[in-house]
Amino acid sequence: MDQKIYAVIGTGAIGGYYGARLHHGGHDVHFLLNSDYQFVRQHGLKVDSHYGDYSIPADAIKAYNASEEMPKADVVIVALKTTQNHQLETLIRPLLTPNTLVLLLQNGIGGEQALTRLLNIEYTAGGLCFICSNKVGPGHIHHIDYGRLTLGVYGELGMPALTSVANDFHNCGVEVDVENSILDARWKKLLWNVPYNGLSAVLDTDTAQIMACGETVSLVKAIMKEVCIAAKATGSTLDSSLIDIMLNNTAQMKPYLTSMLLDRRNGREMELQYMYKNVLDMAAEQGVDMPRTEALYQQLSFVNRSVANE
Amino acid sequence: MDQKIYAVIGTGAIGGYYGARLHHGGHDVHFLLNSDYQFVRQHGLKVDSHYGDYSIPADAIKAYNASEEMPKADVVIVALKTTQNHQLETLIRPLLTPNTLVLLLQNGIGGEQALTRLLNIEYTAGGLCFICSNKVGPGHIHHIDYGRLTLGVYGELGMPALTSVANDFHNCGVEVDVENSILDARWKKLLWNVPYNGLSAVLDTDTAQIMACGETVSLVKAIMKEVCIAAKATGSTLDSSLIDIMLNNTAQMKPYLTSMLLDRRNGREMELQYMYKNVLDMAAEQGVDMPRTEALYQQLSFVNRSVANE
Repeated sequence: MDQKIYAVIGTGAIGGYYGARLHHGGHDVHFLLNSDYQFVRQHGLKVDSHYGDYSIPADAIKAYNASEEMPKADVVIVALKTTQNHQLETLIRPLLTPNTLVLLLQNGIGGEQALTRLLNIEYTAGGLCFICSNKVGPGHIHHIDYGRLTLGVYGELGMPALTSVANDFHNCGVEVDVENSILDARWKKLLWNVPYNGLSAVLDTDTAQIMACGETVSLVKAIMKEVCIAAKATGSTLDSSLIDIMLNNTAQMKPYLTSMLLDRRNGREMELQYMYKNVLDMAAEQGVDMPRTEALYQQLSFVNRSVANE
Repeated sequence: MDQKIYAVIGTGAIGGYYGARLHHGGHDVHFLLNSDYQFVRQHGLKVDSHYGDYSIPADAIKAYNASEEMPKADVVIVALKTTQNHQLETLIRPLLTPNTLVLLLQNGIGGEQALTRLLNIEYTAGGLCFICSNKVGPGHIHHIDYGRLTLGVYGELGMPALTSVANDFHNCGVEVDVENSILDARWKKLLWNVPYNGLSAVLDTDTAQIMACGETVSLVKAIMKEVCIAAKATGSTLDSSLIDIMLNNTAQMKPYLTSMLLDRRNGREMELQYMYKNVLDMAAEQGVDMPRTEALYQQLSFVNRSVANE
């Protein structure tokens, strides 16, 4: 597997950026596109990056609009938003060999478990992207800052394959770390995402405004406590001392518009299933009640209906 | 007390309507005004009512802009919004005799207790207004429909005085009933107000939209359960079978804009202390946790900050 075939499912702000980094490092990368397909075939893919701009010209990019036309892949990077996950089996199945590693670069929790069952495979890898990147036009990514990947496997047998992929990213200049458990990493990110994404979207506000109001700070903290209890009940080692650290860090951050707030403001469906519903279901399976998180999810479901109806 | 002196504190949609009904019935009614004082002195008070229009001309209305200039009253009707309750002692004290009955026509809970302590009096009466009435201009009330008053006392010694006031309202054509406990009546109204006022304000929506979304219906029901448990813990006889009845009735209502939603949309401070904070405090005193209600209160506090800053 020295020279792997990479397939990128979803060539947007995340898939476009990391796929281009791998391509820049000399890897064989195949991009699946949807609405941007014709444009990218004609004009290529352009990444304006904090770490140096990079383009893949039209005559060099391997762009597709159907998985069936792509080669079988050693690694399938899924960089769709979770709201598109109902398409995953159709999109991934044609790319699989018995040794393919599927890597989910998505928010929330529960995606690896669902995909492992759905595809009847032994393991799936997951990744969290600590990155500031937007798609600003067809085939045009603006990478503003950061880019660290935290990777982990669901199913221990996947670790050697993931380690090799992590090395590829590292060699392409991506800061990367591999955790023993993708679940721990996902719970840690959820500890921040569950309160801040949801509250910012429901209240239509940024993190600084939330931290400037004593009542919403108390609510953030109470929701974080619920996430901590749920995480521990599902076997995660999430440390509750992280709560105060995250609150302090967020209070010192510049005003930040969460991805869910941006989705709401731009009339896009919010990622509620993987960031809220799966969390609530996993907690309920362990007999853990999350009343504030559930109330937030119910409010967000209402907002999502309005978004979908507009 | 056959011919009582009535003082109306706050001559708006509620105080203006009920004060005018009492005046129409031949009672001696004195109106305290603030911003509308000069206008009403010059033009009188005008009530366009579902039950027939009625005006008190400028040369007949007893209008004041300071309690000190008003006569001592047999009955003080407080019809300010609870957000103005910090002014109550100053406004009421000059009107009191040892036998004055103070009647609070306000939303929420805890007002009678607070006022009884504040004024060091033996009892206070409270009332709930089931009415659709708006102030549409200076000294100009538009009474759209309904008008039933549910009255009760805090402090049993007040019952004879309240019964006499209830008779006055009845004789003036106001539908009125007297409950043994104003607390029971207030909890019953809170059972509806706590979920619908708060959620409609946070989500910026009407009751019909809330009832059209399964998740928000579940949230309304869960909040109602919290209110029921809190009410029972404080000694109320509130019946939890009311929950399904209220949900069904609300689902069949025409789309309704709650008073709290209208306050938000019109940039007015929302009545959080008496409708939420007092409820949470009373529950906490009994060791009852209301996580969803508290989360809603915390969100509303955030919204109120924005309203106050605009």
